[in-house]
Amino acid sequence: MPQNNQVNRQILLASRPVGAPKAENFNLIESPIPKPEQGQMLLRALWTSLDPYMRGRMSDAKSYSEPVPVGGVMPCGAVCRVEESHLDGFAKGDLVMSYTAGWQDYSVSNGAMVFKLDPQMKNPSQALGVLGMPGFTGYMGLLDIGQPKPGETVVVAAATGPVGAVVGQVAKLKGCRVVGVAGGAEKCAYAVKELGFDACLDHKQDDLAEQLALACPKGIDVYFENVGGKVFDAVMPLLNPHSRIPVCGLIAQYNATELPPGPDRLPQLMRLMLSQRIRMQAFIIFDNYGPHYPEFLKVMTPWVAEGKVKVKEDQVDGLENAPAAFMGLLEGKNFGKLVVKIADS
Amino acid sequence: MPQNNQVNRQILLASRPVGAPKAENFNLIESPIPKPEQGQMLLRALWTSLDPYMRGRMSDAKSYSEPVPVGGVMPCGAVCRVEESHLDGFAKGDLVMSYTAGWQDYSVSNGAMVFKLDPQMKNPSQALGVLGMPGFTGYMGLLDIGQPKPGETVVVAAATGPVGAVVGQVAKLKGCRVVGVAGGAEKCAYAVKELGFDACLDHKQDDLAEQLALACPKGIDVYFENVGGKVFDAVMPLLNPHSRIPVCGLIAQYNATELPPGPDRLPQLMRLMLSQRIRMQAFIIFDNYGPHYPEFLKVMTPWVAEGKVKVKEDQVDGLENAPAAFMGLLEGKNFGKLVVKIADS
Repeated sequence: MPQNNQVNRQILLASRPVGAPKAENFNLIESPIPKPEQGQMLLRALWTSLDPYMRGRMSDAKSYSEPVPVGGVMPCGAVCRVEESHLDGFAKGDLVMSYTAGWQDYSVSNGAMVFKLDPQMKNPSQALGVLGMPGFTGYMGLLDIGQPKPGETVVVAAATGPVGAVVGQVAKLKGCRVVGVAGGAEKCAYAVKELGFDACLDHKQDDLAEQLALACPKGIDVYFENVGGKVFDAVMPLLNPHSRIPVCGLIAQYNATELPPGPDRLPQLMRLMLSQRIRMQAFIIFDNYGPHYPEFLKVMTPWVAEGKVKVKEDQVDGLENAPAAFMGLLEGKNFGKLVVKIADS
Repeated sequence: MPQNNQVNRQILLASRPVGAPKAENFNLIESPIPKPEQGQMLLRALWTSLDPYMRGRMSDAKSYSEPVPVGGVMPCGAVCRVEESHLDGFAKGDLVMSYTAGWQDYSVSNGAMVFKLDPQMKNPSQALGVLGMPGFTGYMGLLDIGQPKPGETVVVAAATGPVGAVVGQVAKLKGCRVVGVAGGAEKCAYAVKELGFDACLDHKQDDLAEQLALACPKGIDVYFENVGGKVFDAVMPLLNPHSRIPVCGLIAQYNATELPPGPDRLPQLMRLMLSQRIRMQAFIIFDNYGPHYPEFLKVMTPWVAEGKVKVKEDQVDGLENAPAAFMGLLEGKNFGKLVVKIADS
């Protein structure tokens, strides 16, 4: 059943996954469409975002935000149409980006974490990617923590994903040598030919560490960490003195159920940080940099319009397909920013 | 034989230690006193410094500076008297701090990394500690990377050492709650009663982690890392969102010959950094902050003179006793800044 004005389709967390999420961890139900009260508005989702951070919300491990309760709606941001408004500043028909919409057709909002979009916006789904949370993450983490200088070498993994693609393209605009890491030859070719990376390596190859050393003859000055795991292992020996590591995500280890076997490399990492005087800083974009969002949009919107920053989306049709698409995301099956189309307009 | 004007006693690195340094890794020899040429001066050591970083120089593992060659003079800073000068700006009789003197009576310098001291300075050996490299390290790391705010909780280990004592006392001056960690009841009592720490825990107790949690009821906002090992293990679960970790040393692991057994906690540390949005930054004081040295002295010198920052030295007599004192330093046997008195004046 597609979106309609009779019911609210919702995807709930049915149970907490152990390791990789499975279909049984999700539950699609039909609920009544909620009614907004005074000071609220009703939003109808058009495009819904799927992002790696949602895996963290499915767990009850200590994290930067509360886990989804079992039986709760899966969290996400969505591009929405205002259906009914009792809230100053928003009117029926407005196109908005809501960061609290959830995996469902309809949500009620008091305006918090909701931003109006240009109604003439050609590709509103870009508000979920290059012009939204992932693009903002790549931009601020690279520039504020990474502080790339012309001629320096920047390495980023998930190179064709919405964060990595922004990191790499912005680093090129800043005059850096950019080496990406991605899963498979097709993504690597795209990163070099379309996004303009200097090199892109396939992490599925056994000799990633050797290839990375060859691709970074002057070492690594900025490693933008959004995956963790074996990419970071390959990066560590190449880090230059005073290198910077912005950390925004660790998708490669989100499904892990236990720590890897030893030896314990924690002391080795600390020693490396000291000997190379490394700065490593983790951040959650709106938590660390929320007030910078308008200035980011002011720079990035024309870059996208002029083609200086290229955009690739992986579009999935229908809310009911969100769980399978999300499971694929954690395995790197998507190619470009993963978005779910819920309704045409 | 004490210092004299006939020979230059030198302590050389006889062989690279495996694990904890032993007496056989050092060799005391007598050499001719070197002759300074035009543009150089001859320095005679009065006070020599022993610091944990020297353990790193004894190894040939990749580090921030070149290892001492086997057969080379052990490196160190020293308070020296100028004996003979063919260098503008320095005259016979000047009291100076040389960061390149080495474990020996006499050294030749071209003036690089040599700073003139006030000839009226009451305790010149303080130039090796609270007013020198260790004090500068504690001060800049705490203030620039740690950015402590009033009411926040700051934790520092080696609390009665020259770095930790400065970190804790400056953090108190900035209005923080300060919890120290030190080896043994006597050091802990000193940190609380004399240095004014709010609490100080003995790392030799088995329940360090539980005690630290009790001493930090609001969690930890700044952990100044100068030891590594089990103190960091106890700190990790208590780190608050947006906490900061300046890293200047890892004395607890300098003698390690292999990585500890598993599991591998490197991914756990990365996950913690992300979930708490932690900033960790390692630094080598003169490399990162050299130009700030005069402004540090301007603040710290009156603090020491007025007793706002208290100073404790562990004085050892005679160059020939430097190796044994250094071996003790790595085991935490010193109480206060370890200095070796070479000559009276």
